[in-house]
Amino acid sequence: MVAYLGVLQLRQIVNEIGTETLIAALADRIEADFHRWPEFDKSPRYASHSARGVVELMPAADAERFAFKYVNGHPGNGQLGLQTVAAFGMLADVDTGYPVLISEMTILTALRTAATSAMAARHLARKDSRTMAVIGLGAQSEFQSIAFSELLGIENLRIWDTDPIATKKFLVNMQGRGIAIHVASGAEDAAAGADIVTTVTADKKRARILSGNMIAAGTHINAVGGDCPGKTELGPEILERGRVFVEHTPQTRIEGELQQMPADFPVTELWQVIRGEAPGRTGRDDITVFDSVGFAIEDFSALSLIYDLLCERSDIARLDLIASPSDPRDLFGLLTSGENPQVLRRAV
Amino acid sequence: MVAYLGVLQLRQIVNEIGTETLIAALADRIEADFHRWPEFDKSPRYASHSARGVVELMPAADAERFAFKYVNGHPGNGQLGLQTVAAFGMLADVDTGYPVLISEMTILTALRTAATSAMAARHLARKDSRTMAVIGLGAQSEFQSIAFSELLGIENLRIWDTDPIATKKFLVNMQGRGIAIHVASGAEDAAAGADIVTTVTADKKRARILSGNMIAAGTHINAVGGDCPGKTELGPEILERGRVFVEHTPQTRIEGELQQMPADFPVTELWQVIRGEAPGRTGRDDITVFDSVGFAIEDFSALSLIYDLLCERSDIARLDLIASPSDPRDLFGLLTSGENPQVLRRAV
Repeated sequence: MVAYLGVLQLRQIVNEIGTETLIAALADRIEADFHRWPEFDKSPRYASHSARGVVELMPAADAERFAFKYVNGHPGNGQLGLQTVAAFGMLADVDTGYPVLISEMTILTALRTAATSAMAARHLARKDSRTMAVIGLGAQSEFQSIAFSELLGIENLRIWDTDPIATKKFLVNMQGRGIAIHVASGAEDAAAGADIVTTVTADKKRARILSGNMIAAGTHINAVGGDCPGKTELGPEILERGRVFVEHTPQTRIEGELQQMPADFPVTELWQVIRGEAPGRTGRDDITVFDSVGFAIEDFSALSLIYDLLCERSDIARLDLIASPSDPRDLFGLLTSGENPQVLRRAV
Repeated sequence: MVAYLGVLQLRQIVNEIGTETLIAALADRIEADFHRWPEFDKSPRYASHSARGVVELMPAADAERFAFKYVNGHPGNGQLGLQTVAAFGMLADVDTGYPVLISEMTILTALRTAATSAMAARHLARKDSRTMAVIGLGAQSEFQSIAFSELLGIENLRIWDTDPIATKKFLVNMQGRGIAIHVASGAEDAAAGADIVTTVTADKKRARILSGNMIAAGTHINAVGGDCPGKTELGPEILERGRVFVEHTPQTRIEGELQQMPADFPVTELWQVIRGEAPGRTGRDDITVFDSVGFAIEDFSALSLIYDLLCERSDIARLDLIASPSDPRDLFGLLTSGENPQVLRRAV
């Protein structure tokens, strides 16, 4: 029987643990996994493109666990009342190849993306950062804000979205969290005086949310929204002025802000900073850019952590996803026999 | 909500429809999909190897549906009481990227493999074939036998396995089906007088179950067991004497009996025969070989057919696998709000 984590139960777990605490635990787990980066079986994601979007499979494995995420990207889904990006994932035992967990990953991806951003900023932003700009107030914005509040001590947000409804949604969701919020008049106003600038806009196009003149010395830029071919948020001059940090270089050159730059544009992989093999921020005036696109190891970390949390619970739902005949060679007998106790332990 | 098809319900559906009828329907669906082969988005399978086995993702898509199968191959699993090969799959709507079905695929793969073999033999074996040898009596053997009985009119089986327990299991499972069964004294005895020879042994090694002198003119060989690197069943002289038919050439050259042959060894893809673009059997004395390894389109066909069958039922189980906030941008609100009707339509 395979454990199942649906949306309802994940919501229950998040509310029991607290969003802040879960994001912090995810950040620690992702950091630990990045620290052992060379141990992972890393592959480019598999993508199948169609007229309206793309579906992808993102696999990653270590010596014990194999994980993959299925995720779509359909810019027109919002008009249908659907998520632009929805996902689910699986964790398997490498020794037997058997799946151990099927999990929703739309919410889990939002949590791990925010955790990865904050974890990267722990290494790249100034320690005294207290003010963050958030440009783009879509599905990811609250998760980013909470992650940076919890992990970096951000106390002030300067927010901006072209859509007032998104702004209102953000303000309602962030009420009562002890974070001061300034609604800016535009992206430039949002970035003014910010120690950290998070860009997390949703439009699937080459945009220029930030240009070089908006960015002060010492800023850390958390560039989250430019995450697929044809979608960018930063003016290229920002990448030239700053030092650029990425998850997995070959993927980021195709999907990230890097797609604007020459193929030999110098970057540092974040895991090298975490392992002390490459410098992160070298001084107060550095401009650092985390060109985040989302890598399969982060999904591995998230599935792995949530499975560990789930295993401590007594209310695990289970699926009869894998046939278990008492004699493995007698698969046919399983179909025709009147009963089979191993299978009849049905999903709760 | 995503439809879920577990082992128990698939068993119920198979027993309601009948194994023979379902395999015949699968064969027709697979043939129809092979007939529109050029329409499919085809990719090599993704494989992650470890010390004890391999796990694979096999994707395929047409303009409407995307499917993939997760499948492992762990030769040592039998000693743990587990399946050597276990699988599950997913079907998604290409227009939205949303999953519509999660399904067990261990049994479904056994059914589709047998259906593919029999469908290929419909094009390649002599029409008057009545006797089939089955060499290797593991998990796939009964499915193959039933498929060939149903689709080709096979009336006599000549069976062989090195393990008497497997033979006994096969005989028990095949009782009362009106098929005459001769337990042979070895592979050569099994093949003697057979119109069709099915090899479906399980050992993961380069074996030589059949050699050229065992094969009479006019035989169709259904080579199922040699399906991964390092695993073959036929002496290469058989491939040289016969005409070899494959699913997807690049995959079969790596995984099939073909791995023994030079890279330019001539083969014909089965879909070309089905579309009338290449000859199948050209005369009574041809030796034809279907070098089957299993291709993702067959899984697509199986998932697609079983989803169509499931949609006609009133007892569909559903999973809350995809978060559905009423405002797609308000994923965070879904976590914190007290209720959300779209999500609270919970799995039955």
